[in-house]
Order: sequence, then C-alpha cells, then structure tokens
Amino acid sequence: MLVSDPLFSAMGRRLSEPVITDLMKRVIDDPGLLSLAAGFTDTHTLPATEVGRAVEAVLAREGPPDVLQYGSNQGRTVLRRLIAERVFSNEGGAAGGIGVEDVAITNGSQQALYLAIQTLCDPGDVILVEDPTYFVFLEMLRGMGVQAIALPSTPDGAPDLNQLTDFQKELKARGLWSKVKAFYTVSYFSNPSSRSLTSKEKNALGEWLAGSGHPVALIEDAAYRALWFEQAHQAPSALHFEWASTLPVLYLGTLDKPFASGLKVGFMAANHRFWLERMLYAKGHQDFGSAHFAQAVAEEVILRGDYDRHLEMLRPHYAGKAAAMGQALAATRLEKMGWQWNFPTGGLYFWLRGPEGVDSRMGGALAQAALERQVIYVPGDLCHADGNGHHTIRLSFGAMQVALIPEAVQRLASAIEDTG
Amino acid sequence: MLVSDPLFSAMGRRLSEPVITDLMKRVIDDPGLLSLAAGFTDTHTLPATEVGRAVEAVLAREGPPDVLQYGSNQGRTVLRRLIAERVFSNEGGAAGGIGVEDVAITNGSQQALYLAIQTLCDPGDVILVEDPTYFVFLEMLRGMGVQAIALPSTPDGAPDLNQLTDFQKELKARGLWSKVKAFYTVSYFSNPSSRSLTSKEKNALGEWLAGSGHPVALIEDAAYRALWFEQAHQAPSALHFEWASTLPVLYLGTLDKPFASGLKVGFMAANHRFWLERMLYAKGHQDFGSAHFAQAVAEEVILRGDYDRHLEMLRPHYAGKAAAMGQALAATRLEKMGWQWNFPTGGLYFWLRGPEGVDSRMGGALAQAALERQVIYVPGDLCHADGNGHHTIRLSFGAMQVALIPEAVQRLASAIEDTG
Repeated sequence: MLVSDPLFSAMGRRLSEPVITDLMKRVIDDPGLLSLAAGFTDTHTLPATEVGRAVEAVLAREGPPDVLQYGSNQGRTVLRRLIAERVFSNEGGAAGGIGVEDVAITNGSQQALYLAIQTLCDPGDVILVEDPTYFVFLEMLRGMGVQAIALPSTPDGAPDLNQLTDFQKELKARGLWSKVKAFYTVSYFSNPSSRSLTSKEKNALGEWLAGSGHPVALIEDAAYRALWFEQAHQAPSALHFEWASTLPVLYLGTLDKPFASGLKVGFMAANHRFWLERMLYAKGHQDFGSAHFAQAVAEEVILRGDYDRHLEMLRPHYAGKAAAMGQALAATRLEKMGWQWNFPTGGLYFWLRGPEGVDSRMGGALAQAALERQVIYVPGDLCHADGNGHHTIRLSFGAMQVALIPEAVQRLASAIEDTG
Repeated sequence: MLVSDPLFSAMGRRLSEPVITDLMKRVIDDPGLLSLAAGFTDTHTLPATEVGRAVEAVLAREGPPDVLQYGSNQGRTVLRRLIAERVFSNEGGAAGGIGVEDVAITNGSQQALYLAIQTLCDPGDVILVEDPTYFVFLEMLRGMGVQAIALPSTPDGAPDLNQLTDFQKELKARGLWSKVKAFYTVSYFSNPSSRSLTSKEKNALGEWLAGSGHPVALIEDAAYRALWFEQAHQAPSALHFEWASTLPVLYLGTLDKPFASGLKVGFMAANHRFWLERMLYAKGHQDFGSAHFAQAVAEEVILRGDYDRHLEMLRPHYAGKAAAMGQALAATRLEKMGWQWNFPTGGLYFWLRGPEGVDSRMGGALAQAALERQVIYVPGDLCHADGNGHHTIRLSFGAMQVALIPEAVQRLASAIEDTG
C-alpha cells in the first residue's frame, strides 16, 4: 500500500528510526554478540523479591484495591512527598521550598524531558546541551525540529566557563540567541561522559543563564545521581542555588535505574508552577497519569526500606564492574595508541576519546571490525550535537556480566588496533 | 516569580486546564458528593487476587527477572501476538492480516491516540469526529491546535449518512477539506453516547473516506468493545473491511477498562506500516517503551484465563448497574419533561438529551443546583466539537456503587426540575 506523504504532519515526516534500534536488532540476531552499547542496568541485580513483597502488601490492604484504579494525573501524593523529602529537603537553599505540589510522576524521566521540550520549544528553537550529551535526547530534539547547540566544552565533557561570554556573543551574531529556550545538563555521572558538574560549574552556568536577559530555563537530568560508587557527588541540585529564584529550573529523576527499569516510574520537580502546570496539561492529553499500580509499588518499596537497601547492594556491584572495565582497558594497548578515558565514580559509562583520525561511526571500518569480533559500542558522534566527535566511543558496563567485560573490551581493542 | 510567555512554545501557551480537573477537585473537597461524572470502572470489582497471582508467577520464573528490566519500544511480543489473535484473527477480511508486527503496546489507549494525532496533524489541520464524541480527545486536539469538526449526526449520536456528500461539499467550499487528516470514531458503546456503529454505517463511512480523493485515515477507538452486557456488538473492526486495503486504519484498544486501569496497558493496531513506524519513533522519544512489568502482568492474566474470567464477572455487574440507572431515570419526571436517552447495551454511560433551552454547562444554574444537591455530571457541550449541545448530559454508572445510583439520579432530576 502506498499513501502519499501529505497524510502526515511535519513531525510525522521528520521522524526517523532511532539509531539504537539498529544496535538492538544486531544483539537479537547474534546471541554471541557482546554489547557494550546498551545503557541498561544489570538484569541479574533486579529486585524481584522486593517487588513481590511490595505487590503483596499493596494488594492486601483493606478496602477495594484502588491501586488498580486510575491514579491522578500528577501522581500519588505520598510518593511525591517522599521524593520531595528525600531528594530536596536536605539540600537547603531554594531546594528546601520544593514540596509535594512541585513534584509530578512521569513514565520514566524520559517523558518529563519530552513534556519539557514540548511546552518550551517550537520548531526552529534552540536547546543548549553539553558536549557530549545524552544521544536519545538529541534524537528527540531532531524529531521535534528543535536545534541542539553544544556549549563550549573541554574534551572530557566539562563546560568551558571562560568561553561562555564569547559563545553567547557568537549565537547572538548568528541570530540564534533569541531562539534559545533552555540549557540541558546531565549533571551527575553523565550519560555518556560519566562526569558530574561541580557546584562551582553549576553555579556559574546558572548565573550566566539567569543573567542572559532572555527568558530561558535550566533542565537538570539527574537520572544517575543515586548510582554513585563510593560517595554521593557533593554538588546540590540546580534547585538549590540563589538564581533558582528567578530561573525556571526543572529537575528530572527516576526510580528506574536505581531500582527497576521495568516499573517505569520517573519524576520531575519544578520551581515554576506555571511551567509544571502546562507540562501536566500535556501529560493529561498523553496518558492522564502514569500507571497507578507501578507508583504504588515504588512508594511501598521506599517506605519498607527495600529501595535503599537495594541501592546499598547495587553501588558496590557497579563499582566492581567499573573497576573490571577500567582494568580491562588498562590491559590493552589503547593508552599507548593515544586513547584517553576518565575513570567513572558513578553511573554506567566509560567515555573514550581516540586520537584524531579515528572514525567510530556506524557503518565505518572500526564499527565493522568490532561487529566481526562480535562486540558493539555507541559511536560517540551520536552524542555530539554537531555530529562531530568521530574519534569518541561510549562504553557501558551496566548490563554486561562482570566476567564478560575483559573479553568484550579485548575484542574492541583488537578491532581498534586492526583499523588504526 | 513572573516569567514572560516568550519562554513557552505555541503549545505551552495554548494548553489549558482540563475541565475534568475541576470536577475531580469537587469530589475531593466534598466526600458527600455523588459523582455521575467519572468514566471510571468500579474499584470494588478490580482483580486484586488475579494480579497478585500473575505477579507471583512472572517473578518466580527461572533466570534473572527480565520483566523488571526495560522492554522493547513496541512492547512484549507474546502480548502483541495474543492481542492480534484475540481481537482480529476471527474477524476475517483484511483484519485477518493483522499480526504481531502490526500491534504496539501503549500507556493506555490514550497514548496511542496522542501518537496518531502527532504524526498526522499540524496546527490548523482538521479531525472529523462523531457528534457527540470523547471530550478528552477534543481537549487534546485543542492543545495541539487541531480543529475538530463533527459529522452530521442524529440526536442519538449516529452518523447521518445521507448528508455526507453535502457535508464534504461544504467543507470543500470553506477550504477545510484539504486539511482533513482523519475521522475519529468511538465505535463500540461510545463515550458518551453508548451507541455502536453498525456494520453498515462503518462500511459506508469507510467507503466515503477511501473514495474522497484525499489522503485521510480512520482512527477507531474501541476502548469499550469488550464491555458488552448481553452480547458483543456484531460489527467487525474497521480493519476488516475491503476499503481497509487502501485506507490507513488505526485501531485502539485497552486492557484497562476490561481489567485494571491501574496497569495502564493499551494497544494500537495499524494496517499501514509506515504510519505505525512513525508513531513508534515518537513513542521512542516519549518513553522508549511502556512499563515492561505491567505488560508482563497483563500477558500473564490473559494466558492464565483470569482476564476472560474477570470479564465474565464484570459484564453482568455493569449490566446490573445500567439497569439500576435506567430504572432510576424512569422513576423520575424527566421523560414527561421532554428528556430522552437510549438504554445502553454495553459501556459505562447514559447520554441524556433535554428539551431545547436546558443549559447544562459548567457554572450554569443547573450545574449549580446539582452541586447544591451534591451530585455532578459531565455537561454535554464538552462532548460536542462545536461546543453546542447545552441541553445534553453524560452520566456514568461505572464507578458508583449500585445502591447509590437511585439517590444520585434522584438528586440530578430534582436539580433539573427546579431549574426547568
């Protein structure tokens, strides 16, 4: 059947297949393939016992089983209160003012991100991002016709604060500054750089945005904040800072990566009631509220202490896997060949930068050599707003069993050596 | 804090508070209020035992608990296969060709509706609807800047097939026909009219659309299809008909209303691969897949037979409530005062039409009189694309306990009599 394009909206025609779909197909097609690409958590660590206990408890409550009924559009009040208390009440500053009314439950933090961009951006508008940044977000922006422009950054993904003034001037000269709607940061153990914004960096960025003389928001994606190895990253959330009293800030978090992705319970907290309302109106049209049952289970595991106990188990587990990947990388010739990486202190990723001239892109010689050795990675260009960074690679140690990490890294190193 | 509107997108500025929010607040504020407004199913019937059993079974499976991991964007394969088999394989015709690849799982059928409109419509485009139609859908269209135009209809909500040619001519003359992207129908036990499209009506509408010489789709919302009282409605889905080989058809369904709304598992099936792909790309940006755990639970209750057994219990339950509401209405003076309604044979609603001159709108004298008597309803104008139908009212018997129905209807009748 052939139906001409005029049936579809501009978005319908613009949307294209997510890159990750191709990578996932390859995993399904080849069971021997080792995937360093998937940003999943480890299925073997998932809390079946805890979820089972929580379900039993919420279903055993007296009265009709209202957890199997629709919930409210904004989400369960107790869960929202728990989030406000646990995430923000100890941060002090403006974050202390975040209460139950400022928090909403979403279908993973991904939906919160979508709602934020829908309510802020028309096609042609600009979102500032880090360099590198979360590649699914870049794809989402393209689908919405929104431009992503990266802040000046150092190779390890830190914002280059000294260049912000010149950067702004340049965007103004190009007629782009007036289209900027928000700055998006993955501020804790970033996907893909594993880097966290320091308190000083976050403060400088917020001051810069708040003083830019143009209405603009800050979107802080804290999906990996709880996944620290030895200690929490010390910078408070963007909602804490003084400029948060004039700058609209949206904070995104999730109970998925720290607990169980299959529940799909994310959240957002905003200091700007008008914006949050509008995001909730859009959510009302999309689903009029996230699954009530999953929310009740998430609330129950927090109240029982199972959520925190699970995280206590998870942290050394991921620390061990990160150590294994670090050792595996150190055992290769990559460093001698000019490759660099930071050792992550949380999150799920290593961010590798090869020498200029490396081409890690999908379909290229390196990607092909890796596939032949039955290993896949995320090409770093996908994480760059300008599509550059052909010499970079994102590796994840999240899903892979620790015993397989040395073999997977060795395969990748061998592919790099043979195509170098 | 004041932030000027330029921060927000056209959608962000356009979105407004859903009408239902005000009604829900009133229920919370006044525990003595009887709500005939909420289109919820009955919390007392929700399948706690069945869900508990299914959770236990899926978590007890051998191997790591992958149901707590992310699922795929399109949804669990077995669940999609079950849906394709159960809904379409016995319908014959083109519906027989609907397979696992043509079905996708969504966050309730509401998300499928949202994805459909996103991929079809730009602001200013037109969606044809029934008169009356699902009021949350009308609000969604307004939020997206899309125009809803009602088909010529009889007072009970049937399409007036004899007027379709003139209607099309009129839209062409007004320059609107070229903007029409789809016709939306709630084709089984409609919200709000409780009416079902006959096979003949559906066929005539599909032929009309397919022969319109303009790319247009048909969106069939079958959310209430399984909720029949005595027997299933005999018309096959729109995917069955001959014209479905050239007309893009999207069929929306849900496992929520027939089982447990708190799980939030809906689905869509499409005969147009290109359209389904684009909807899935947009879904990938919104949540990259619905909650895997809820999908696994839904799949398990179907496989165990609990889903069907639950429906067998539910049908006489709702039939009994509908009968109670019918008797309660018959016991009032409303018929003598010129009010009319159909007796539903499925679904959750009575659709009342008063004599001209009645004004049921929010904030009006009747709504106020009803509130004073502690009863609320959905004003019918919300269900009309043109905002008319001030003399109509939607009543739901879904959520209310059967023993309270006579009292609630009596309160409403008293409010009508006193303001008549």
